[in-house]
Amino acid sequence: MTISLTLADITAQLGGDVTGDPTMRFDRIGPLSGATASTVSFLSNPRYRSQLAESAAGCVIVAPAQADEARARPAGGAVIVTPDPYLYFARLTQLWARLTRPREAAGVHASAVVDATAQVHASAHVGPMACIGPGAVVGEGAVIGAQTVIGRDVRIGSQTRLAPRVVVGDGCSVGDRCILHSGVVIGADGFGFAPTEGRWEKIEQLGAVRIGHDVEIGANTCIDRGALDDTVLEDGVKLDNLIQIGHNVHVGRHTAMAGCVGVAGSARIGAGCTVGGGAIILGHLQLADGVHVSAATVVTRSILKPGQYSGVFPFDDNAAWEKNAATLRHLHTLRDRVRALEKKNV
Amino acid sequence: MTISLTLADITAQLGGDVTGDPTMRFDRIGPLSGATASTVSFLSNPRYRSQLAESAAGCVIVAPAQADEARARPAGGAVIVTPDPYLYFARLTQLWARLTRPREAAGVHASAVVDATAQVHASAHVGPMACIGPGAVVGEGAVIGAQTVIGRDVRIGSQTRLAPRVVVGDGCSVGDRCILHSGVVIGADGFGFAPTEGRWEKIEQLGAVRIGHDVEIGANTCIDRGALDDTVLEDGVKLDNLIQIGHNVHVGRHTAMAGCVGVAGSARIGAGCTVGGGAIILGHLQLADGVHVSAATVVTRSILKPGQYSGVFPFDDNAAWEKNAATLRHLHTLRDRVRALEKKNV
Amino acid sequence: MTISLTLADITAQLGGDVTGDPTMRFDRIGPLSGATASTVSFLSNPRYRSQLAESAAGCVIVAPAQADEARARPAGGAVIVTPDPYLYFARLTQLWARLTRPREAAGVHASAVVDATAQVHASAHVGPMACIGPGAVVGEGAVIGAQTVIGRDVRIGSQTRLAPRVVVGDGCSVGDRCILHSGVVIGADGFGFAPTEGRWEKIEQLGAVRIGHDVEIGANTCIDRGALDDTVLEDGVKLDNLIQIGHNVHVGRHTAMAGCVGVAGSARIGAGCTVGGGAIILGHLQLADGVHVSAATVVTRSILKPGQYSGVFPFDDNAAWEKNAATLRHLHTLRDRVRALEKKNV
Repeated sequence: MTISLTLADITAQLGGDVTGDPTMRFDRIGPLSGATASTVSFLSNPRYRSQLAESAAGCVIVAPAQADEARARPAGGAVIVTPDPYLYFARLTQLWARLTRPREAAGVHASAVVDATAQVHASAHVGPMACIGPGAVVGEGAVIGAQTVIGRDVRIGSQTRLAPRVVVGDGCSVGDRCILHSGVVIGADGFGFAPTEGRWEKIEQLGAVRIGHDVEIGANTCIDRGALDDTVLEDGVKLDNLIQIGHNVHVGRHTAMAGCVGVAGSARIGAGCTVGGGAIILGHLQLADGVHVSAATVVTRSILKPGQYSGVFPFDDNAAWEKNAATLRHLHTLRDRVRALEKKNV
Repeated sequence: MTISLTLADITAQLGGDVTGDPTMRFDRIGPLSGATASTVSFLSNPRYRSQLAESAAGCVIVAPAQADEARARPAGGAVIVTPDPYLYFARLTQLWARLTRPREAAGVHASAVVDATAQVHASAHVGPMACIGPGAVVGEGAVIGAQTVIGRDVRIGSQTRLAPRVVVGDGCSVGDRCILHSGVVIGADGFGFAPTEGRWEKIEQLGAVRIGHDVEIGANTCIDRGALDDTVLEDGVKLDNLIQIGHNVHVGRHTAMAGCVGVAGSARIGAGCTVGGGAIILGHLQLADGVHVSAATVVTRSILKPGQYSGVFPFDDNAAWEKNAATLRHLHTLRDRVRALEKKNV
Repeated sequence: MTISLTLADITAQLGGDVTGDPTMRFDRIGPLSGATASTVSFLSNPRYRSQLAESAAGCVIVAPAQADEARARPAGGAVIVTPDPYLYFARLTQLWARLTRPREAAGVHASAVVDATAQVHASAHVGPMACIGPGAVVGEGAVIGAQTVIGRDVRIGSQTRLAPRVVVGDGCSVGDRCILHSGVVIGADGFGFAPTEGRWEKIEQLGAVRIGHDVEIGANTCIDRGALDDTVLEDGVKLDNLIQIGHNVHVGRHTAMAGCVGVAGSARIGAGCTVGGGAIILGHLQLADGVHVSAATVVTRSILKPGQYSGVFPFDDNAAWEKNAATLRHLHTLRDRVRALEKKNV
């Protein structure tokens, strides 16, 4: 579905200090480069500043420092000045989504299987072939996508959206205004076994998963249930796709993790952390608030001080890498050789 | 569902050398720290030994070496002495799960689609909207979760539990007493193509997947079908979440892999191995029995001797890492410089 | 289903320069080692050449250079000579698959939920409990597997096969002759947030995913929708299982990626590239055509020249690795020490 908004429509909803004809119409949000007269664009990253003057965007969203430059663009057009253009852009995408995406109707699709003891709020939407177990509670305005499975005694908060084909296991809870994308599995068993006589005896996972408010979880990400206590994601946590969160992990408020991260069991991650894509965090570790882990870094011990941490083998053309890697396998010996030379050279 | 068990209930089922009032009641299994009079706790890892004396747990499970210390706890309470407290704990969680989790009823849900030529044992449970293909056989006491898809000619062993939303592809087989968690995909095509004129010609994957008894497979893990022969997981293999097992891989008995591991095609992994989270094992390699691969290690050649193997770039604060990584890119040159110095210093 | 083909059946379909009795029958394709008189085998990788003479295969497919040797095998049997035996083998597997796999019947299963405004070609197959949204178009001969969810206004090309339990989100498109395996999620939201006051404000993802013709996507792989523009996979791209493709990524024609790869947002990957398993490609990078990234390599900057690129910490037995890794943490200091020695030794 396409829409066209006037400048007045936008600023009526989102505010800002505006210059331009309020009846101008826009049908697209887009980057400065490639923009046309019907595009709303924005400048937040200073590295794109050089594009501002040449952009043909019908409207640009800028910070006060760029206001004069924006208003002097040869292409003319409107300017919205706001303290944080990226945040304004985020809210503009939200406005766009509200206007262009059909709202799911309240009610339960005829093909869904809802247990008689489940409580689904009258304003909630339950899609085709969804399955809601005994004792489950689905809150006001919640959306349960097609083929999503809600287990026994699960709680889904109000305004929370589960995409098609999510699984929320027995006894787990999801707060308000969360978004869970397709393929997410909440509450599979944690990986726990007692070794005995050369085989593994299962430790039944008796805890659950507790997810706070305003949490977003990407496609095919897994959050395991705790062994005895619960696995916890606090309010505002954002997880990308294909992430593994082990049993009894605790993730603090507003921590964000990019795709393909693995967090092993019982790790305790602080608030306001970020974890780059493909990073691995070993089990039973602690990360302080405000720790930032670079992509593909393997965290093998606790980090008690905020800051940026990294550990990635630098890539190179294959021949150069092979030579360096071969030398690396004898690095300790090389150090000893340097030490021996130093003794000779005292 | 919550329960409360007496000390006598527990020891009647699991044995052990008991001290304490058999009518004491417990409603929770939990760690020593934070335990209350209604908690059963255990000591297996010696690093928690200091917590034993102070624990308020109503019952502690300990090894013979800690029996006296446990019986002398200021908090009093019961003591169960057993040669392997962790194994006892595992069995206690199993007892707990049996008593607290509702059993799925035998029978096929009205919304499931079961082919007329499939054979589902009368004692098996087939959940809502499950789909069972032609010629499939589902064994005694098996549980097929909601929306799980069982392909043509698949065999599911007795007492095996498939969580909601598992896929088992055509012709694959799963042994007895297995557990497959939500999102597992068994028998997707292996990744095989013949390059020709700058594009890829598909090699149809004609093998299947054979899974032994007592295998557990974590959420969203994928086991590809073989190209010509079968991909095989032997008895007792335990795989965590989000693992990729390529075509024609063979995993030996009682080998366990943590989350996010990738095993490329035709690797042959021995029995009793462990593979840490995020490790990558390249294709066509062999790992002997009893090989232990550390988390995030990349195995690039066969390992023919049992032992622990590792290869992880040590992480550091970002500035320190950057300096070391920059030097690493010239490591081979550094070695040459050391060699030159050695010649001068003979 | 098993079949048996005569030599004449095979060569009538696939050609080749044949020696042998056209009525010979084969019921299996298999490697040279372990082959029997009813096996068709092939030699393409020179490292298996020594197996040719001893193989008992009833028929071998070889390149012209091995024709004489193949015809002189002690086991006798047929020989098919062709310029590219691996390609011939690929086509033989395709022939085998066509003959042994039942074709899905045209039509929509009674349990599927198809919106009244969707257009499903009469020759297409829609499996049990599939769900097809408003305005979606499913092309000629397409196969929509059981429980697959097709969103609003999606286009699925002709002869494209979606396995059971795929999700294709609203507005996304998939070309002709594609294969999407179980658990694939196309069009979940890209991971985009504006930071504000210590929390994350969602950037609604307004783009879609566009997938070309002849693309194959492995089980549980995720392709996120673009933030403003579309995420694009060009014709002939082949992705293995459990891959993450971030928003606004562009993957060029005939590029192939092995399992567990992560590609961060806005990366632009050329045509004819290969990416090894577990590799990570950071966001906003460019890879030229013909770039080959080794398994588990982390690509942290653009690569503008074709070639093979690597960056993997060499694994070792744990003790050796520990010593080298400990030294690596002081590598920059070691370099300074070498420099100091060099100054003394001028």
